[in-house]
Amino acid sequence: MTTLSRRGLLAGAALAGAGAALRTSVADAAAPPSGHQAPAFYRARLGEFELTAAHDGIWHRPIDATFVRGAAFADVQKAMADAYMPYPDKLSIPFTPLVVNIGSKLVLLDTGSGGQMADTAGFLPANLAAAGIDAKAIDIIAVTHFHPDHINGIKTKDDVLAFPNAEIMVPAPELAFFMDDGNLSRASDSVRGVFLNARRVIKNIAKDVTPFEPGKEIAPGITSIAAYGHTPGHVVYAVASGDKSVLVLGDTTNRPELFARNPDWQPIFDMDGPRAVENRKRLLDRVAADRMLVHGFHFPFPAFGHIAKEGKGYAFVPVAWQPVL
Amino acid sequence: MTTLSRRGLLAGAALAGAGAALRTSVADAAAPPSGHQAPAFYRARLGEFELTAAHDGIWHRPIDATFVRGAAFADVQKAMADAYMPYPDKLSIPFTPLVVNIGSKLVLLDTGSGGQMADTAGFLPANLAAAGIDAKAIDIIAVTHFHPDHINGIKTKDDVLAFPNAEIMVPAPELAFFMDDGNLSRASDSVRGVFLNARRVIKNIAKDVTPFEPGKEIAPGITSIAAYGHTPGHVVYAVASGDKSVLVLGDTTNRPELFARNPDWQPIFDMDGPRAVENRKRLLDRVAADRMLVHGFHFPFPAFGHIAKEGKGYAFVPVAWQPVL
Repeated sequence: MTTLSRRGLLAGAALAGAGAALRTSVADAAAPPSGHQAPAFYRARLGEFELTAAHDGIWHRPIDATFVRGAAFADVQKAMADAYMPYPDKLSIPFTPLVVNIGSKLVLLDTGSGGQMADTAGFLPANLAAAGIDAKAIDIIAVTHFHPDHINGIKTKDDVLAFPNAEIMVPAPELAFFMDDGNLSRASDSVRGVFLNARRVIKNIAKDVTPFEPGKEIAPGITSIAAYGHTPGHVVYAVASGDKSVLVLGDTTNRPELFARNPDWQPIFDMDGPRAVENRKRLLDRVAADRMLVHGFHFPFPAFGHIAKEGKGYAFVPVAWQPVL
Repeated sequence: MTTLSRRGLLAGAALAGAGAALRTSVADAAAPPSGHQAPAFYRARLGEFELTAAHDGIWHRPIDATFVRGAAFADVQKAMADAYMPYPDKLSIPFTPLVVNIGSKLVLLDTGSGGQMADTAGFLPANLAAAGIDAKAIDIIAVTHFHPDHINGIKTKDDVLAFPNAEIMVPAPELAFFMDDGNLSRASDSVRGVFLNARRVIKNIAKDVTPFEPGKEIAPGITSIAAYGHTPGHVVYAVASGDKSVLVLGDTTNRPELFARNPDWQPIFDMDGPRAVENRKRLLDRVAADRMLVHGFHFPFPAFGHIAKEGKGYAFVPVAWQPVL
């Protein structure tokens, strides 16, 4: 039997690589490499509804010891390595907005980065187009909170509405908090940026934005649920049709390999850390007990899966790609 | 704060579902549901090579207590439930062939079901087309072994070569074993079907098939490695370019939630159970120790990830979808 050794594999690799480099060129390539990724959208049926998760991309955010309160940085880096993230000093954060077709309306939950945060994100419009969803056909945008990766995609880089026919629904407490000048004056430097960005996005469309009270159904079958702490007005959405449901967790939990596994860890993004932890545990406990399908905005694409209790925390079990609905 | 309860969610769901049913019809739908899944291919760069994993679909195989040797059926069903598989009495087995563009050639590793096994599989041609890969441009097909889900896609349902310009490379011990009439005469009923199917696929193209000795490089940068037991001639492929490599595990491990977690479990597909277990552990130990990228034909799409030692077995850590190569 052939012996497999790392050294043997790598020696073979180096030789093969060198050989390939000598032998090949663009001219004699049987098929040139495409150089780009597949369209990234994923469909699921939920009762009478059709869900389309559409990837906006990944933000590789530089981090240091201040990034997680309640954890040694070495433990954070170990969790990142255990998840095979590509960088030891950057958290790779995917963004996946969700379109819910409730039959009478197309509802977009969160909007991604609008191409305004990183070269490796901003692909929501392209992925929606690949899914056959016209930006003009979106009837409602509902956001979970006002962080840039959730609201910037309301507009293009050129400050034009990306979904021109959509009603924009926002949690009333979130709008009130970030539009309050007293809160802005008291904000830390890092949160100040969130205020200024939110005002930049909202300022000239404020009269067209619809605030709603958390707990309210924002469209038939889509109910908002208060889950404060990450931001003062952060909500999640329960989407239900017939006897099927999914809990759209928003930023209840960032990358699950870190913050579901260790729900007490507080990413710097959580404005009220203890309250965010309380809601994180409450919601993860609930969906684990009920074996409820979840969608997490920062979970690996397609961002659907289940939460299982494991040790002192929770494991995320991604859905297996289904070829037919 | 809004109280979240399962009962509350479901009551809301039922009401919302009823409401939606009253309110909506095809005529007033803002956008009709598409009813079908996204194209399922995934790209990764590997040194100078470009990899394209292309989904053939999922086979929901009925199982009973005879399916796994070495495990109580209740434990098998618990592992399936822990993985949130959709059926308690069917193992959901995805098929994901892999195209390696080595620059000078396009090499297809395994071929899927050829639309000859289940309505929920047979999508490889469509997904390759979506990836911009012309079936006529495939230069080499190399198979890991002769089970139907790996070789049936060599041909269409109409018995025509699906990749008409491809050299078909097969492990010599596999070819010798399944073409031997003595072996056929001694085969159990279940294995007899594998023999007859392999002969059906191979019979009129036998002179055009290229057998190779395991251990041989079948194309520059793609080295076959004997991993017998699953079948008598089963091989895996080490694909390497520059200092990057991926081990293409074939059927070393079926669904990792069952057989990586519990490497001693022997699925009925493993013709020589103990030898398959030995090779499974040897290869999983190696890729875990080396943190080597792997591709598993029956791993959830896109079938790439890493293997981590965990307890008495191994956990599969799927890759997070990368939007740019």
